[in-house]
Amino acid sequence: MTNTHASLNGKDNLRYERGLAKLQQIDGEGGIKVVESLAGIAPDFARLLIEFPFGDIYSRPGLDLRSREIAVVAALTAMGNAAPQLKVHIQGALNVGVTRTEIVETIMQMAVYAGFPAALNGLAAAREVFAADASLEEPA
Amino acid sequence: MTNTHASLNGKDNLRYERGLAKLQQIDGEGGIKVVESLAGIAPDFARLLIEFPFGDIYSRPGLDLRSREIAVVAALTAMGNAAPQLKVHIQGALNVGVTRTEIVETIMQMAVYAGFPAALNGLAAAREVFAADASLEEPA
Amino acid sequence: MTNTHASLNGKDNLRYERGLAKLQQIDGEGGIKVVESLAGIAPDFARLLIEFPFGDIYSRPGLDLRSREIAVVAALTAMGNAAPQLKVHIQGALNVGVTRTEIVETIMQMAVYAGFPAALNGLAAAREVFAADASLEEPA
Amino acid sequence: MTNTHASLNGKDNLRYERGLAKLQQIDGEGGIKVVESLAGIAPDFARLLIEFPFGDIYSRPGLDLRSREIAVVAALTAMGNAAPQLKVHIQGALNVGVTRTEIVETIMQMAVYAGFPAALNGLAAAREVFAADASLEEPA
Amino acid sequence: MTNTHASLNGKDNLRYERGLAKLQQIDGEGGIKVVESLAGIAPDFARLLIEFPFGDIYSRPGLDLRSREIAVVAALTAMGNAAPQLKVHIQGALNVGVTRTEIVETIMQMAVYAGFPAALNGLAAAREVFAADASLEEPA
Amino acid sequence: MTNTHASLNGKDNLRYERGLAKLQQIDGEGGIKVVESLAGIAPDFARLLIEFPFGDIYSRPGLDLRSREIAVVAALTAMGNAAPQLKVHIQGALNVGVTRTEIVETIMQMAVYAGFPAALNGLAAAREVFAADASLEEPA
Repeated sequence: MTNTHASLNGKDNLRYERGLAKLQQIDGEGGIKVVESLAGIAPDFARLLIEFPFGDIYSRPGLDLRSREIAVVAALTAMGNAAPQLKVHIQGALNVGVTRTEIVETIMQMAVYAGFPAALNGLAAAREVFAADASLEEPA
Repeated sequence: MTNTHASLNGKDNLRYERGLAKLQQIDGEGGIKVVESLAGIAPDFARLLIEFPFGDIYSRPGLDLRSREIAVVAALTAMGNAAPQLKVHIQGALNVGVTRTEIVETIMQMAVYAGFPAALNGLAAAREVFAADASLEEPA
Repeated sequence: MTNTHASLNGKDNLRYERGLAKLQQIDGEGGIKVVESLAGIAPDFARLLIEFPFGDIYSRPGLDLRSREIAVVAALTAMGNAAPQLKVHIQGALNVGVTRTEIVETIMQMAVYAGFPAALNGLAAAREVFAADASLEEPA
Repeated sequence: MTNTHASLNGKDNLRYERGLAKLQQIDGEGGIKVVESLAGIAPDFARLLIEFPFGDIYSRPGLDLRSREIAVVAALTAMGNAAPQLKVHIQGALNVGVTRTEIVETIMQMAVYAGFPAALNGLAAAREVFAADASLEEPA
Repeated sequence: MTNTHASLNGKDNLRYERGLAKLQQIDGEGGIKVVESLAGIAPDFARLLIEFPFGDIYSRPGLDLRSREIAVVAALTAMGNAAPQLKVHIQGALNVGVTRTEIVETIMQMAVYAGFPAALNGLAAAREVFAADASLEEPA
Repeated sequence: MTNTHASLNGKDNLRYERGLAKLQQIDGEGGIKVVESLAGIAPDFARLLIEFPFGDIYSRPGLDLRSREIAVVAALTAMGNAAPQLKVHIQGALNVGVTRTEIVETIMQMAVYAGFPAALNGLAAAREVFAADASLEEPA
């Protein structure tokens, strides 16, 4: 079903394949769950999510994946209205090699730009993700 | 006058000195202008701005200045309601060694998390800052 | 109790009656629950909610109810900080004849203007509302 | 023309009169300019602006006008996307007896809840309003 | 230059062509200006803007263009931090057949969901666009 | 552990002590819980939270604590993305002598500036805090 509209865009297979690989590399299981959750309500959106953010944007040269994930953790913490996606990307940051300390520092810094409540809620998200993460690294 | 309240906190001289040096290192002339603009309306806020964001946060170990500036450019682009500060920090990013390409990529990525208008307005800010910047580096 | 202050404004009965009818037409049970939830904390706010948004705004000519509900679903999805109200208005959109497909398309389009997290959270709200809705129509 | 729809609501004259008086008391010239600016584009909205915010909300007992204006200055500073209205309400706060110092403190405090850029932009708005204001009171 | 990266995605020509046509249909001159403004700073972003929002989203069946533009005007008014894009889409709404009255009603309704300042600033944008527009239709 | 970094700033003991007392006075048990929740993830942030918002800002003269808490309740209601902090500060407002009626009026007024959903969600937070509060005062 995800493929109905894609078939009109058969030519997009490259973007789709590249995006799916990037999604798995960055967001891992969390990213796949997001895609699966869309199956019943908006399967085309799952395809678009793979193609544009991951196939187009994350696949670009010019900025390393670690910096990209720091940027996303910063932005979602500052916006403060997308807790599920913030958690996926805190895990994503860990997946591409950002340390727990770097994640905590990025979130703390948002107190300056978006206020203490945004930073506190970001740290609560990080605590949850770190607790579920297999890694043994110590937080800041 | 900035020192009135600080005198009550004489012990904060370390934070103030450390913060002022960091402000100059990161934001350069733009940061000094911000501080000066507060002289007539809220001189204590100039002191607090130097002490907390720069003396406390930016002076922390655990995250390099390049990553900190990428995080700020991402957050301010995504929030979309702080154009003057975004420009100061695009220059700040250049000052600590983030390349024009990296800045443009950071802002472009915000289209995914905060929408195309946020990214377009962020790119407009970058264009302005780059035009005024002495550096000869080519954009993306 | 809702009527205490209204009695001072006896002349507002028309707006109140018109608003209550409109609230029931658009939001149905969900709207009544919102009004009831205010009884213990701010009964006057229940009256104002009926009179201004529903008695004044939704009762205006110049824009059909279907378009008004599409506008609200779009705005609340984009703002991303009002999940309970978004759900009430996704049901409201269904109540005034917006199809599931149209609702899903409206929310997907917000990925462009407010980012993918906003759209993903909007689709999650729609999935919940559609699952609870008696209608048999198929989603997009 | 403002009265076309009001005539359907002839009974709302009380709210309109009460609201207009309150608008003049709080926002003074700035409020009247807002109303006039709507004449060519949405005259009914001018009436609704007078009736609901000023006729209904500001006319309520239970919170004094000084506190109401402090609340508005805080909220608009924190939201950071409504500079014209923030200026009108900084003047409004002065009009109902909030001191310059209290306004500056209210805005500075928003650095904690909405970040330093929001507070800096709020202070810039205050500087502009204070400069244009006849009052001789000294800022903080 | 816009085509450098597209050449890697030669298969995306369909999306690009379809998107460019849709951009011209909806946003007209305003859309082209946005694309041109990106030439010096982020030409790839111009391509992505044409391909994803216009080639992918606006080209979908399931929601008519009038409703799509009402949704965008509503969302950008409510967000309140993207004035240039709001103006482009108020013109875009006119271009696809939304009447001035419908635009004004959509914006007025946002007072309920995002507050009066958001609606007032949206109406100011509409006044500007209507004044520059050749159409003779009368506003609400 | 909270003191590791503070020892570098031994001179900040005054700000820390003053801030801790102010935190306890305003937020009471809720504030202490916030500080404790940071122990495992970002103990330094607990110290910064005590020193800057409470030691620096809330300790300033120029605006009484009642007005400061009204300002915070207004801002967090309007922002709509910090429910836990809003609840802490609704209790904080009660703690420094703001009445339930004044809190309800402050939140209701936000319907004008940030929309009805923000006010409705703020009132839901107030209902929860009031229900848990020992005080016998009646709501509005």
